[in-house]
Amino acid sequence: MSRTERTRPQVVIVGAGFGGLAAAKGLAAAPVDITLIDRQNHHLFQPLLYQVATAGLSPAEIAWPIRHLVRQQRNTRVLMGEVTGVDPVRKVVMLGDGPVAYDWLVLATGVTHGYFGHDEWAADAPGLKDLDDATGIRRRLLLAFERAEMASSPDLCARLLTIAIVGGGPTGVEMAGAVAELARRALARDFREIDPRKTRVLLLEAGPRLLPGFPEQLSRYTAQALDRLGVEVRLGKAVTRCNADGIALGDEVIEAGTIIWAAGVKASPAARWLGVTGDRAGRVPVGPDLRPRGHDDIYVIGDTAVLLDKPAPGTAPVAKQQGAYVARVIETRIGGKDEPPPFIYRDRGLLATIGRKAAVIAYKRIQLKGRLAWWLWGAAHIYFLVNLRNRVIVMTQWLWSYLVFERGARLITGLKRQ
Amino acid sequence: MSRTERTRPQVVIVGAGFGGLAAAKGLAAAPVDITLIDRQNHHLFQPLLYQVATAGLSPAEIAWPIRHLVRQQRNTRVLMGEVTGVDPVRKVVMLGDGPVAYDWLVLATGVTHGYFGHDEWAADAPGLKDLDDATGIRRRLLLAFERAEMASSPDLCARLLTIAIVGGGPTGVEMAGAVAELARRALARDFREIDPRKTRVLLLEAGPRLLPGFPEQLSRYTAQALDRLGVEVRLGKAVTRCNADGIALGDEVIEAGTIIWAAGVKASPAARWLGVTGDRAGRVPVGPDLRPRGHDDIYVIGDTAVLLDKPAPGTAPVAKQQGAYVARVIETRIGGKDEPPPFIYRDRGLLATIGRKAAVIAYKRIQLKGRLAWWLWGAAHIYFLVNLRNRVIVMTQWLWSYLVFERGARLITGLKRQ
Repeated sequence: MSRTERTRPQVVIVGAGFGGLAAAKGLAAAPVDITLIDRQNHHLFQPLLYQVATAGLSPAEIAWPIRHLVRQQRNTRVLMGEVTGVDPVRKVVMLGDGPVAYDWLVLATGVTHGYFGHDEWAADAPGLKDLDDATGIRRRLLLAFERAEMASSPDLCARLLTIAIVGGGPTGVEMAGAVAELARRALARDFREIDPRKTRVLLLEAGPRLLPGFPEQLSRYTAQALDRLGVEVRLGKAVTRCNADGIALGDEVIEAGTIIWAAGVKASPAARWLGVTGDRAGRVPVGPDLRPRGHDDIYVIGDTAVLLDKPAPGTAPVAKQQGAYVARVIETRIGGKDEPPPFIYRDRGLLATIGRKAAVIAYKRIQLKGRLAWWLWGAAHIYFLVNLRNRVIVMTQWLWSYLVFERGARLITGLKRQ
Repeated sequence: MSRTERTRPQVVIVGAGFGGLAAAKGLAAAPVDITLIDRQNHHLFQPLLYQVATAGLSPAEIAWPIRHLVRQQRNTRVLMGEVTGVDPVRKVVMLGDGPVAYDWLVLATGVTHGYFGHDEWAADAPGLKDLDDATGIRRRLLLAFERAEMASSPDLCARLLTIAIVGGGPTGVEMAGAVAELARRALARDFREIDPRKTRVLLLEAGPRLLPGFPEQLSRYTAQALDRLGVEVRLGKAVTRCNADGIALGDEVIEAGTIIWAAGVKASPAARWLGVTGDRAGRVPVGPDLRPRGHDDIYVIGDTAVLLDKPAPGTAPVAKQQGAYVARVIETRIGGKDEPPPFIYRDRGLLATIGRKAAVIAYKRIQLKGRLAWWLWGAAHIYFLVNLRNRVIVMTQWLWSYLVFERGARLITGLKRQ
């Protein structure tokens, strides 16, 4: 595969999300050759993906070419391709045409959404993991209003203007709030036959409360804030069917023209590649130094892994810290030094936004909600965007939307290939 | 179709490009009901579409929802759908489920690219007319470099790094310049195995010179400026075959991994709808008041029409002026006033950009080229963008690219549905 001679230790990193990129950056000055592999050509700022799906931001505002991010790092090459397996005996990763050899392997392949064994729901209830998912959901949402405007019967119109979001974690909460604001504010006066403000937005969570990872008080606030935005929150009932007509919760049938799936994470096939047994969500169990049992030269980080002793939340700060940690560990081991200390997660807090001037933050013993939390949420997300250009543009988009209630990317695209 | 009672004269406008939108806006205060129909939900600023195809701008930066543009105009409704025909006897337009009745009809459906009878070339030589075309070409261009980086043989690599653009009009010239700058500047240092600066960019024109609508002196300058950017300009030979391996010009075969089609316009099916004979490009011949012979209540404008006496160029200013003109004419005729004077095009000049600090402008007897023309071109395009938000964002993108030679939207999307 490579046309260059390689004699230094080979580090292969699969996945250029928060974890994989942090690992690569952490090894920038190390005496190794790094191969960073991803299916996509871009690193994605996933925390804002829901804003692409709801027409607030453009894809390029939250994504950046991976090879551009590591262009200065001469010990790193980037390959765009799909990994199909790992051979720990030969120490190679299987990639498209051929194998890529490693001395050290970092798996940071992330998660995708799972349908609890009902993959047939995927066509009518798409999830949100990459940019194509986001522009696809955007197309469905905006087309629902276009079709309702031309609907021949009130029943059809009502079904088209019902949007159900499944899953009450951060993604579901953020989607529900953003969809409600899209309908009630940005689209409110753009139609003649329908009133988009009458759109029915449902958020369905099988568990007893929203945002289960957060303190209970913030869950209650979130439900109230969504209620004020006109979102119907339904707790404690699992979805039993999804199709083009709507959703079933046991006996109850809800007619809905658009369903968005934000429940059930399912890890990438890393566990299968390694021949280890994953946890219920398919994640790879790892020890305190992020290695799965029986694999001395393989690290698994971010959402792909589950720490046996002390599970960490599936967030960007965890992935980043784990990426930086394995970079340090690999450098230490190459240098023949002592065994490094175990990975310890330094809490960076949990954030979720609900809508205009409403967000929740849980940081150690501090709980914040409402307006201040919302401004902090916005500042943190701008700060963590990948470069200055994106910061300026996202700030412009947000400021504009804040002032005039418009959305910057109300485009229906991909119709021809639907 | 409509659930509202309508008693005022019904004006139906098909197509919300520069012409159709100008017609709708011109009738904002007229005592009529307007139905504006488009296949897309957005008005597109087509002059900058090539920048989306070459990763400089994002789709939402040059497109805006049609219904948002006319939201204040209470006499106008917008329908998103595909018109399949016109019945001039019943005075209806056929749209999806049902007919839409008109008293006055404006056809502003634009052009698409034609393959001179070789529609089988379309799959390997895509053209550039809408946002999906642009993101599709962007995917092909960026994937060519990704595949070249992993290519197993120098021959394959050379073919992948050959990009042929067919057609030497403004779109072809702008694409060729932008592709050359993408390869030689923005991508230059992002790869390890290949040198993107060695990319071969060809611009193929069957006629004797580039930009045939411009003065000859500017055509010569354009060829020289492209040569300086490293574009091989080939004149006087028509393409005789396109496929996945490349292009043939008679006996000569050029291996090319990417082909972009910027030749041969083909008008929309408006001529067929009206039962009139189109010109060679399929455009509808119209008289001095923009009506086709035998149709008193139908106007055809923009690229869809060809003025019999005095053909005008296929540009945005022509379409805009014709849209404004038919709005005035319809209002006059409804008021029962005298016949309006014929349409006269007020020359707004011709502009084309070649690359950084190189553009050409022909305005009446003035010819401009080089740096000044480039700055004027940029200012004019920012000015004509549809609103302040887009102006701010496009200016930010351009300023950034100008300073650091980066491109703001280097995303490969739509892979899953390829």
